[in-house]
Amino acid sequence: MTENGLGHRERVLNVDTMNPNVKRIEYAVRGPIVQRAVQIEKELKEGVKKPFTEVIKANIGDAHAMGQKPITFFRQVIALCVYPDLLEDDKFPEDAKNRAWRILQACGGGSLGAYSASSGIEVIRQDVAKYIEKRDSGIPSNPDDIYLSTGASDAIVTMLKLLTSGEGKTRTGVMISIPQYPLYSAALAELAAVQISYYLDEDKCWSLDVSELRRAVKAAREHCNPRALCIINPGNPTGQVQNRQCIEDVIRFAAEEHLFLMADEVYQDNVYMEGCQFHSFKKVLFEMGSEYSSVVELASFHSTSKCYMGECGFRGGYMEVINMDPEVKLQLTKLVSVQLCPSITGQALLDLVVNPPQPDEPSYATFIKERTANLHILSEKAKMTEQVLNTIPGIHCNPVQGAMYTFPRLTLPEKAINAAKEQEQAPDMFYCMKLLEEMGICLVPGSGFGQRDGTYHFRCSLFQKPTHPLQKMD
Amino acid sequence: MTENGLGHRERVLNVDTMNPNVKRIEYAVRGPIVQRAVQIEKELKEGVKKPFTEVIKANIGDAHAMGQKPITFFRQVIALCVYPDLLEDDKFPEDAKNRAWRILQACGGGSLGAYSASSGIEVIRQDVAKYIEKRDSGIPSNPDDIYLSTGASDAIVTMLKLLTSGEGKTRTGVMISIPQYPLYSAALAELAAVQISYYLDEDKCWSLDVSELRRAVKAAREHCNPRALCIINPGNPTGQVQNRQCIEDVIRFAAEEHLFLMADEVYQDNVYMEGCQFHSFKKVLFEMGSEYSSVVELASFHSTSKCYMGECGFRGGYMEVINMDPEVKLQLTKLVSVQLCPSITGQALLDLVVNPPQPDEPSYATFIKERTANLHILSEKAKMTEQVLNTIPGIHCNPVQGAMYTFPRLTLPEKAINAAKEQEQAPDMFYCMKLLEEMGICLVPGSGFGQRDGTYHFRCSLFQKPTHPLQKMD
Repeated sequence: MTENGLGHRERVLNVDTMNPNVKRIEYAVRGPIVQRAVQIEKELKEGVKKPFTEVIKANIGDAHAMGQKPITFFRQVIALCVYPDLLEDDKFPEDAKNRAWRILQACGGGSLGAYSASSGIEVIRQDVAKYIEKRDSGIPSNPDDIYLSTGASDAIVTMLKLLTSGEGKTRTGVMISIPQYPLYSAALAELAAVQISYYLDEDKCWSLDVSELRRAVKAAREHCNPRALCIINPGNPTGQVQNRQCIEDVIRFAAEEHLFLMADEVYQDNVYMEGCQFHSFKKVLFEMGSEYSSVVELASFHSTSKCYMGECGFRGGYMEVINMDPEVKLQLTKLVSVQLCPSITGQALLDLVVNPPQPDEPSYATFIKERTANLHILSEKAKMTEQVLNTIPGIHCNPVQGAMYTFPRLTLPEKAINAAKEQEQAPDMFYCMKLLEEMGICLVPGSGFGQRDGTYHFRCSLFQKPTHPLQKMD
Repeated sequence: MTENGLGHRERVLNVDTMNPNVKRIEYAVRGPIVQRAVQIEKELKEGVKKPFTEVIKANIGDAHAMGQKPITFFRQVIALCVYPDLLEDDKFPEDAKNRAWRILQACGGGSLGAYSASSGIEVIRQDVAKYIEKRDSGIPSNPDDIYLSTGASDAIVTMLKLLTSGEGKTRTGVMISIPQYPLYSAALAELAAVQISYYLDEDKCWSLDVSELRRAVKAAREHCNPRALCIINPGNPTGQVQNRQCIEDVIRFAAEEHLFLMADEVYQDNVYMEGCQFHSFKKVLFEMGSEYSSVVELASFHSTSKCYMGECGFRGGYMEVINMDPEVKLQLTKLVSVQLCPSITGQALLDLVVNPPQPDEPSYATFIKERTANLHILSEKAKMTEQVLNTIPGIHCNPVQGAMYTFPRLTLPEKAINAAKEQEQAPDMFYCMKLLEEMGICLVPGSGFGQRDGTYHFRCSLFQKPTHPLQKMD
């Protein structure tokens, strides 16, 4: 015992006393394999000899990190907003200056440094609503239904938070696809909500079958209260694009089962395969008539991080809520106000995404050229990734219809599976770890996204560096 | 019953079914009075006649919205990072270009658009550690203890989340001051943690007395498990600056009572009164010797939103954790990774705050001039606010030693208190609402921050527009 009586003792905060819900969270996209990749990068810098000279990070959809170029107009306008002295500069086109001026006028004190309303700058919410109306062939969108957010992740967690209540058998259950983007399982773990898994059909290009939704919700009703259904379209990690019929079926199912619909549509511009097309849940819902459009509750999410812009670092995003109870909207506004507001640079960037240069403006041609080029490269990579992966024995890859990933299936030899088990690793984690150590390729094992028992996969993003590293696997 | 069987029914998500913890949240800084202020602003724009022509928003510490100017160097560097073509531009000083180049080199793909590590860009965490070391007279700081965040609020909520566990009498209790900044009570409500209130001593300029901490923790041990103590220094909303002795006493108390310390130090540059000085909890802890510095667990928070820069909109911030269990740090890293990373523009701005122009650099003179001017204006406003408020009958205002607010006491006539009760309003809410409707001044009632029963206050930020609106109250 020491003088002040402190002596030796346990920490206040240790793994036994910390929040058990946080312990339950898993987030493979930035998990152990990525931490090892960062270590290996350091080792390479320190001169450690490896069978490769750089790590190819195909673990995450991080476009700019993998060489995608920012859209010039977007960056010009943001620079003008950040440092308005540049508004005097001849080097900037007039439309960029006008756009910057308009954003600054909407900021407190004319500065990006002021807080905004918690749901976002009003002018930008209006622009988002106009964008949605245009995208959805004129179906009205109300700026009061738009909440700007810190990337889409922030808004998705906020919605899940609102939806979570009850205890035991009345605890909120949320349906998520398997495979899924692990933000969903992580948020549900943190909120101690019940994850209801429904399986996508790998044999049918990862499509969603409503009969599987029915099976899953029926089973879940025995132990929890299913209240929400999450859809990712275009699919992450599957690269699947849902057709219109499927979306109608899902909406009908949600209506019948009295479920709140959450549509994660952050890859809405990323559709590559001929015959595939993005349909927003909102548009399909309204086209199904007022019987549905007046009752089905929907939140849809978008972000500045994906599509042709890939501006992940700006953390811009929004959600649109349809048929939300007005009292709940007040609660939502209160909830988001505790964090004051999303980053204003992120909001400004989002404004440009939803309100890009128009045909009569000087920056239009360059904008179209750059957007087309970025989408073209992604489209080429989608084809190439599928082709190359399918040449590798033991790998089967579905067509990459959209989004920024593929989720190929691995057939692993019995020996590899046994070796993995000996190391107490999931077999696909074992495979991915080997690939990282031996070839410097960083993928995320399928176990991080969920998969049918006894099957093994990995997620591979379409952003490999132009050296086409996957060919090395031959 | 309609054809599809949907018919009329309750919404899935309504106030009865939503998360009850969210319902319990209160956040007055952006509450009903601010919503009414926004409405009034709209009415003024639409030409509605009022006894005033503009709303003075003294409800929030939003420097730029109230006319404070950004630091030129900071904005130059961020503009260069956003649009690197400007690196060729002669108009920018060399030190700004060097700084931008250094930040871009640390970004994935050399772009602000890439994600960073979830705890923030490594180079910036190193700069933060160096800043802390310098501030704390050489006491070492480890970049691995630094987590960049989306403003300070984000990091504070993350820490409270880690600390929350247990049920019933073992539920985590967190000590917060009354009055407090309502982020704390809001986060505790959302996490269903127990709020343990300790009262600051208004008669002694809102200082903290350890005997009151003892009273509060003793009472709390009967119904929860007190695990953390939150301190805001300089104080929000009180404007009080803690002296060194007080901080030592608090640290000793935390050690004895086995509490995790959370030090909200976002106003660390905002000290105005002669004889007052900012002492960081970290520095005092380490100066107390290893008996304390090796055991007391501490998280301290800082932000880009306050001080001389006031860049709220960039949502930059960090926390430093001391003596945190290494396994908990892994859990913390995992937890923050679910939201990918803080805004990169916010991270970049934070880098400039912790690593501003040096005496031998071309931007130094202007930087010092601007910083001094901003702090001088705040200091003048602090004095003026106190003086002017104290000339008003029924208002008593303590000296504003630091931070950006004052929390004066209102003596309300019996008649006003009764009128408030008739409208089922807190009396200070009634007063603030009247002030808003009749004079266009937007304050936050003391009830939003907490106060002793039967006393009434309001929080007034130091950022009034230069028209000195409070003089109108004479």
